[in-house]
Amino acid sequence: MSVNTLPIIGITMGDPAGIGPEICIKALTDESIYEICRPLIIGDYSCIKYVASVICNCGFQINPVNNVKEARFAYGCIDVYNLSNVDIGQLHLGKVSRMAGKAAFESVKTAIELALDNEIDATVTAPINKEAINAAGYSFAGHTEIYAHYTNTKKYSMVLAHGNLRVAHVSTHVSLRQACDLVKKDRVIQVIELADSLCRQIGITKPRIAVAGLNPHCSENGMFGTEEMDEIIPAVEFAREKGINCIGPVAPDTVFSKAAGGFYDIVVAMYHDQGHIPLKLMGFRFDQEKGNLVGGINITLGLPIIRVSVDHGTAFDIAGKNIASPDSLKESIRYAVRLARSKNMR
Amino acid sequence: MSVNTLPIIGITMGDPAGIGPEICIKALTDESIYEICRPLIIGDYSCIKYVASVICNCGFQINPVNNVKEARFAYGCIDVYNLSNVDIGQLHLGKVSRMAGKAAFESVKTAIELALDNEIDATVTAPINKEAINAAGYSFAGHTEIYAHYTNTKKYSMVLAHGNLRVAHVSTHVSLRQACDLVKKDRVIQVIELADSLCRQIGITKPRIAVAGLNPHCSENGMFGTEEMDEIIPAVEFAREKGINCIGPVAPDTVFSKAAGGFYDIVVAMYHDQGHIPLKLMGFRFDQEKGNLVGGINITLGLPIIRVSVDHGTAFDIAGKNIASPDSLKESIRYAVRLARSKNMR
Repeated sequence: MSVNTLPIIGITMGDPAGIGPEICIKALTDESIYEICRPLIIGDYSCIKYVASVICNCGFQINPVNNVKEARFAYGCIDVYNLSNVDIGQLHLGKVSRMAGKAAFESVKTAIELALDNEIDATVTAPINKEAINAAGYSFAGHTEIYAHYTNTKKYSMVLAHGNLRVAHVSTHVSLRQACDLVKKDRVIQVIELADSLCRQIGITKPRIAVAGLNPHCSENGMFGTEEMDEIIPAVEFAREKGINCIGPVAPDTVFSKAAGGFYDIVVAMYHDQGHIPLKLMGFRFDQEKGNLVGGINITLGLPIIRVSVDHGTAFDIAGKNIASPDSLKESIRYAVRLARSKNMR
Repeated sequence: MSVNTLPIIGITMGDPAGIGPEICIKALTDESIYEICRPLIIGDYSCIKYVASVICNCGFQINPVNNVKEARFAYGCIDVYNLSNVDIGQLHLGKVSRMAGKAAFESVKTAIELALDNEIDATVTAPINKEAINAAGYSFAGHTEIYAHYTNTKKYSMVLAHGNLRVAHVSTHVSLRQACDLVKKDRVIQVIELADSLCRQIGITKPRIAVAGLNPHCSENGMFGTEEMDEIIPAVEFAREKGINCIGPVAPDTVFSKAAGGFYDIVVAMYHDQGHIPLKLMGFRFDQEKGNLVGGINITLGLPIIRVSVDHGTAFDIAGKNIASPDSLKESIRYAVRLARSKNMR
């Protein structure tokens, strides 16, 4: 494939006081990334320049551009779509600040605009800090809500993925009691359809979807809980009648072991922690000696543009120490490339 | 340690139509088991004899005994505390039956009685089938309820363990909505205390206990859910004031990664699947080629006697095929030995 046909991946810098700039730079020192895409950091040139030289000791050239056409996309030279919104003399690594929140937010908003304008083929996001974003005057719970707002999307779902383990969520940031209320047939069908669509986009021609139950043991035929009978089983039956290869409800405590064993391509989880616990257990490695290794990624399904994200936070505690792992970001870029290729073929 | 001072471990046969007898026999063909304990199967002699010779092709002698004193506890000879309650000509492997349910139940009840009488030092249970138990006229949800009933225990908690990952549950077989209602300060304190006690019994002198939140991200200071503020934080503070080294609430989606990484000795989970999903993901291996490998175990805390169990079911689908793994049963026996030694030292 000629370099000029590789997808252009816009990578937001994240909160400049966190590990975002560091992992962006480290990811782009991996030549294999340039073999699959044309990467472009969207953020502040002076910040990337500073982190590359002072923190990462990276000898790569940093190339500031004002539009996508100016980018060189050549390994050894990191292109930055320059928003000139960080005063490096005022930046305090590891601290929440209005300036850093504003810079992080503008990076995301720019990435969305460039993707909607088809200037870039997909977006990949580094971590932001909710408190900083809010301090800068933007009232959003996180990336997902920013993307939904600026793309005018109402029906979306959060997917986490690590290796062959993938999970799409019926709900996310609500109380567990409210999550029970949100298990409704129509919403479950919606997420089954989004999960099926994602699998096809990454090249799985006949996706096998498992739909988890809500209650322990799927309520054992209603002995403890009714959501399986009233909502989940009707949703699965409806989706199957539409030709989607889904089964369920599957007992929540074994469905992820089976998915990890290759029985299913994706699991539809009924609430945040049902999906997050197994994915973070597989994707996060908390190692007291080697530091924390993170491999999972996060995809927002249902948007008109592609968005893949790292599955970790700004890690303010290790910002500036040159020990952050770019693994999750590199996995995110590879996923974005797969989705972009699929989109271009449609 | 002389053989005569090794703890006597009563191992219930489980439902004779399932894999229970097979895994009991396989576990006792491992000489290392006899190096740490004096094992005694509690069940039906004819059934064990049949499964050993016909299904397992095991050349070991099977020694039926009518009381514990008759057991030889010699490697190469499997002792069976004979309840004479299976008509082997009427036994259909892989089928639920009244006879098998009655035999399984009597095996458990006998184990409890022998332990209460100090004839054996601990009990280890092979899987039973709830439907079969109920068909035989015993209305119990499972082992835990049978043990609680016959030992007159009101306050208990289910612990799952696999390697260094351990989790004690605030509630188990109730709907997720009811599980939210059961997150109460007093109950959380009770389970923290039981968890602390278990760790000390297995030789952890300064147990580090993590208490999980109920809601995603522990509700982010009440943004979605109030149980952390109203119940869990007060419980953790109370336990800490009593000198227990516990922290929390810890975000449910990372607490198990951290525990697996060695940060904590045990996690207190707020509901069945919060604890079961990570433990089964680590302990169960669903492998489409090699078959399913199971390594987790289940401990009932709070009883006056020791009870450790395999963390899998009767597996009727593979009964009689000689492919069941005894790994979980062997791990259960080893755990029971550790608990029995600790009890004997007190």
